[in-house]
Amino acid sequence: MRRLLPLVLLALLSSPPAFSDAGMWTFHDFPRELLKREHGADIDSAWLDRVRTATVRLANCTASFVSADGLILTNHHCSEACLDENSTAEQNLVRAGFLARTRDKELKCAAQVADVLVGMENVSAQVSAAIHGLNDKAANETRKKTLAKLEQACEEASKGAAAGALKCESVDLYQGGQYWLYKYHRYDDVRLVFAPERGIAAFGGDPDNFQFPRWCLDMSVLRAYGADGKPAMTASFLALRADGPQAGELVLVPGHPGTTQRLLTVAQLETLRDVDLPRFLLRAAELRGRYIQFGKSGAEANRIVEDPLNSLENVIKVRRNQLEALLDGRLLQRKRAEEVALRAKIAADPALAGGGDPWADIARAEVRARELSLPYALLEERAGFNSRLFGYARTLVRAAAERPKANTERLNEYRETALPRVQKRLLAPLPVYPQLEKLTLSFSLERMREWLGPDASVVRQLLSKDSPDTLATRLVDGSKLADPAVRKQLWEGGQAAIDASQDPMILLAREVDAEARAVRKLQEDEVEAPVQSAAQKIARVRFKEYGTTVPPDATFTLRLNFGTVQGWREGSQEIEPFTHTARLFERATGQEPFKVPDSWLAVKDQLDRETRFNLASNNDIIGGNSGSPLVDAKGRLVGLIFDGNIHSIAGDYWFDPKLNRSVAVDTQIILEALRKVYKANELLAEMGQK
Amino acid sequence: MRRLLPLVLLALLSSPPAFSDAGMWTFHDFPRELLKREHGADIDSAWLDRVRTATVRLANCTASFVSADGLILTNHHCSEACLDENSTAEQNLVRAGFLARTRDKELKCAAQVADVLVGMENVSAQVSAAIHGLNDKAANETRKKTLAKLEQACEEASKGAAAGALKCESVDLYQGGQYWLYKYHRYDDVRLVFAPERGIAAFGGDPDNFQFPRWCLDMSVLRAYGADGKPAMTASFLALRADGPQAGELVLVPGHPGTTQRLLTVAQLETLRDVDLPRFLLRAAELRGRYIQFGKSGAEANRIVEDPLNSLENVIKVRRNQLEALLDGRLLQRKRAEEVALRAKIAADPALAGGGDPWADIARAEVRARELSLPYALLEERAGFNSRLFGYARTLVRAAAERPKANTERLNEYRETALPRVQKRLLAPLPVYPQLEKLTLSFSLERMREWLGPDASVVRQLLSKDSPDTLATRLVDGSKLADPAVRKQLWEGGQAAIDASQDPMILLAREVDAEARAVRKLQEDEVEAPVQSAAQKIARVRFKEYGTTVPPDATFTLRLNFGTVQGWREGSQEIEPFTHTARLFERATGQEPFKVPDSWLAVKDQLDRETRFNLASNNDIIGGNSGSPLVDAKGRLVGLIFDGNIHSIAGDYWFDPKLNRSVAVDTQIILEALRKVYKANELLAEMGQK
Repeated sequence: MRRLLPLVLLALLSSPPAFSDAGMWTFHDFPRELLKREHGADIDSAWLDRVRTATVRLANCTASFVSADGLILTNHHCSEACLDENSTAEQNLVRAGFLARTRDKELKCAAQVADVLVGMENVSAQVSAAIHGLNDKAANETRKKTLAKLEQACEEASKGAAAGALKCESVDLYQGGQYWLYKYHRYDDVRLVFAPERGIAAFGGDPDNFQFPRWCLDMSVLRAYGADGKPAMTASFLALRADGPQAGELVLVPGHPGTTQRLLTVAQLETLRDVDLPRFLLRAAELRGRYIQFGKSGAEANRIVEDPLNSLENVIKVRRNQLEALLDGRLLQRKRAEEVALRAKIAADPALAGGGDPWADIARAEVRARELSLPYALLEERAGFNSRLFGYARTLVRAAAERPKANTERLNEYRETALPRVQKRLLAPLPVYPQLEKLTLSFSLERMREWLGPDASVVRQLLSKDSPDTLATRLVDGSKLADPAVRKQLWEGGQAAIDASQDPMILLAREVDAEARAVRKLQEDEVEAPVQSAAQKIARVRFKEYGTTVPPDATFTLRLNFGTVQGWREGSQEIEPFTHTARLFERATGQEPFKVPDSWLAVKDQLDRETRFNLASNNDIIGGNSGSPLVDAKGRLVGLIFDGNIHSIAGDYWFDPKLNRSVAVDTQIILEALRKVYKANELLAEMGQK
Repeated sequence: MRRLLPLVLLALLSSPPAFSDAGMWTFHDFPRELLKREHGADIDSAWLDRVRTATVRLANCTASFVSADGLILTNHHCSEACLDENSTAEQNLVRAGFLARTRDKELKCAAQVADVLVGMENVSAQVSAAIHGLNDKAANETRKKTLAKLEQACEEASKGAAAGALKCESVDLYQGGQYWLYKYHRYDDVRLVFAPERGIAAFGGDPDNFQFPRWCLDMSVLRAYGADGKPAMTASFLALRADGPQAGELVLVPGHPGTTQRLLTVAQLETLRDVDLPRFLLRAAELRGRYIQFGKSGAEANRIVEDPLNSLENVIKVRRNQLEALLDGRLLQRKRAEEVALRAKIAADPALAGGGDPWADIARAEVRARELSLPYALLEERAGFNSRLFGYARTLVRAAAERPKANTERLNEYRETALPRVQKRLLAPLPVYPQLEKLTLSFSLERMREWLGPDASVVRQLLSKDSPDTLATRLVDGSKLADPAVRKQLWEGGQAAIDASQDPMILLAREVDAEARAVRKLQEDEVEAPVQSAAQKIARVRFKEYGTTVPPDATFTLRLNFGTVQGWREGSQEIEPFTHTARLFERATGQEPFKVPDSWLAVKDQLDRETRFNLASNNDIIGGNSGSPLVDAKGRLVGLIFDGNIHSIAGDYWFDPKLNRSVAVDTQIILEALRKVYKANELLAEMGQK
């Protein structure tokens, strides 16, 4: 799999940069001339508008409409949380798969949303005017306030419109080079229509993750519903091209790449290499061990741990290979050369960067970043309180404190335009597994004690008469926050309800809140602010050189990139761009994760062994592109992005055209499987397939 | 705790160097003048001889004789394996402690030995003559053969002697600058006399490990027995000084520091930093998670996993702080400066290094070391086959192949002089826990598949129709190697017995042996040989400059160092050198690992709250020094080394006199506890205490 949006990663990394070799282009600055020159294809604005509005942003992935009745195609792993929340000890949908033969059988995905980008407005001038002449700290705060105001005004304005209320989100492109408001139509009601068994969706499991050749039917089908409870009418949708793409054919990928780090300075990359990545990986590796061992304690334990384990193993593979990329001298050498070149430009024209040395400014801020890294991760990013219940408690405690404030004075994630998502996530009736809660909470408390030391104030405060196990047990057993109704009451009751609550998880969240906020404030003022300011200076130099002829870094906003279907050369070996059904059965060991589901074995002889299964292309994708359609020059869907090869992980820092490949499910196997294995004739008909 | 000899580390790291700031001095080149000059103390050769022969080398630690009847004082954690092997599901001696009130109640430690260094012979000339004029690869092989021959001849010669047969071991000092034969009297029969509860021996557990202030009674008492089954007569022993040392007092530490890396080149340190340490830590962190979760599955699981978990957590703490030291720019900066200075000496006198650039030679070899690191660790060092049963199988398969060869043609660990220890370890009736075996073997197979990839030949060979779990289960359930009698039969049956065996673990060891040996050969020829040769050139330059006025790197051979009792300044805080009993009770949380045992709570009011508990000194120690006596200028025992502070871990690479401190149990609390808590009057009397 698994080009999932790495949420944890987003939280961990401090600041976004800009610059890409290959190209995650915006729709408003798509290089149509370049595409025409290189591939002879003419993409007009009608094409762009249609593909844009047929592309969907899920909470964690990309997807696309594939029927006029709101049918959405995305990856299996993008729907795994939904499958999980609809599973029980008796019926494990992740393993068994699911098909709603009629619309009334479709299953709600409580935490899922589907956003369609319907408008884009450049607000750079407003932001520039607001922060002009301010120092770093003031500029950082004012920038956030200005964007919060613009978002809110945009949403207010849309409320009267005929097309319905919009979600407005500010977007920082080119590291402060441009600011935009992106306007979305949001479907809040998303339901599950179809998913195959995980055994075939993720055939090869973690060992094969980020590998190619592959044989994964990593697909699922959802449906967007309107506020009226009826299937959404989606005039823009993509038709499936049944034969898939040809080798060498031009293919385009619209989607929401989550984050790239291609313009981080050497000092920032060194912090990642020396501090953030190794520490994260050590914690993650231990948690992986605990999950695996827990999963062996019984069938139900195995079921409830499967989804968190999969996510964790995915992020471990990503981070480990990011670390490898940073340890490989080539990358940093190249980055150093880039810095030398840009510094020379400033030396020739000091006014460019407004005087000063922004690289040195960032290096200084990084010293502070290293000092704050541990308390920030443990206290503010909750690495010391790894628990869904604590997450609810933190949200409730902070929302109660923030919501009474003026919109521009709040912590960023509680600004008015963000609240609906916060509320939805808080109140979604997701299952909470006490055993798993105790495991993760005890683990994280124990590591907090290890890393901060037994004499750190927060450790003394919590563990003076408790062990991590006894504390976690008491908190999880005593808390009522697993009940959505209790959460709703506290959410609606505001500060008074929080003050009155004796829920031990609420008490804990209150107890550590001041210290967490304090370290966040330090991080914002002493790291984020100077880095933002210096990065903007660097971006200005770069922007002046290149303008929008290079694409900005990824920001989980809609992009479009192009490439061709092709394999690569791995050492002395030529990797072909397509895999076929025949080899799937040869590769099966009969043991997880290389076990082909019974449904496939039952029809093995009826399947065309030459059907194309997965394919590689040189499109430039990253986490968040999961579920992106692969479209041909005519805008037809020819594949479904679900992963990249192992070299694609370094794509976070640079695009290596020789090695970096995306990996997709071919429409050939999608249709073959729906037809012969799952006999999903209604679905096929709705997608216009005979 | 836990200055244990890090065996795994020894295995992982490739080559030994030389140079130390502080001083792990040999007994044959002890700087008596320096000591006199700096501390006014006069240590004569009688003192040195007496302390040397009162000091004991255990299999994993240091210890000292404390009575004329073979009584041995060492750390609790040095005897934890012995406590473990004598425990049952009903009686957990690690937790409960143990006291043999009469000698017939003393418990055998099956895998323990006690060595006393009785002779030292310089054989540098013989080795030099043998390798003169050879190329790197031939010199590396010839050096090993020559040392094997010298050892064997030494042991043969001692067989007729009145004092009894000796164990002769070659020692490489100053990275090939000197070769010695060290001659030991070995006690093969070592028994457990006393150990307190782990709750007080390791009060504070992993969180407090390598921390100071501390309150640990990390002691145990063993007894050496002669071949006649009677207590050994040990004329050389140390008397306990009841009042312990004073702040600022001179204290000396005889002991067997395991290994230091103070002369590795920058290229070698970078391999550790970028490759070996992070990869080891990632595997270890996951295994820790599996162990912890396994331990929660029941009381017996908790008992059997405790010892391996403690060892693992110790090594994780060590390696993590080693990695931190290497990531801290100061260390590598200093090393780079040293290299520049030494290179300048060679530039001024090229003949010094025999022409060429030994640093460049090592850097080239390190490129290869990085490539080989993973297969070497997984296949040859058994990180891919983490199982005691597989270890037995590997030993049996290899011993059968090696023993018929001429002594000098064998793999180093099967040379004639090493065989008795190999045999003892193989046949010791240690418990094998199938559940734990499956856990570690499945884990390591799974990581081997992850790291080498599902398509690596060894992975395909083993896992084409199995998962790591099914394979591990089949191997462990099917193997009979847990029975010492079966191992004995195979050991004695030689190659014919191995060929005839259908034990699945033997079959596995045979199946992977060729590939493991092949990667070892590559490592020896393409990494070890050129590094050894280049390091010897560097050592020659250094040796010419300094001679024996600097001590050689640690090699788990007997050393003596001196320092004074003192604390240090941690940031703005002054750390006092002593802790006292009063604070132990204040610090207790009532929860593991901060739970004071009932035996102590019962006599709490009778204990003198001012008794000194643990102490810090600036002696230069490292893993292997665990259990070392801390002696005063008169050669009396005033403390028992059991740990260092957190800064001492970087002592592997350099000694930082400002921060690096050793940590010892004060004799005050040793005697107080034996008297009032354990009422061990026989022991006290034998040690000459009223």
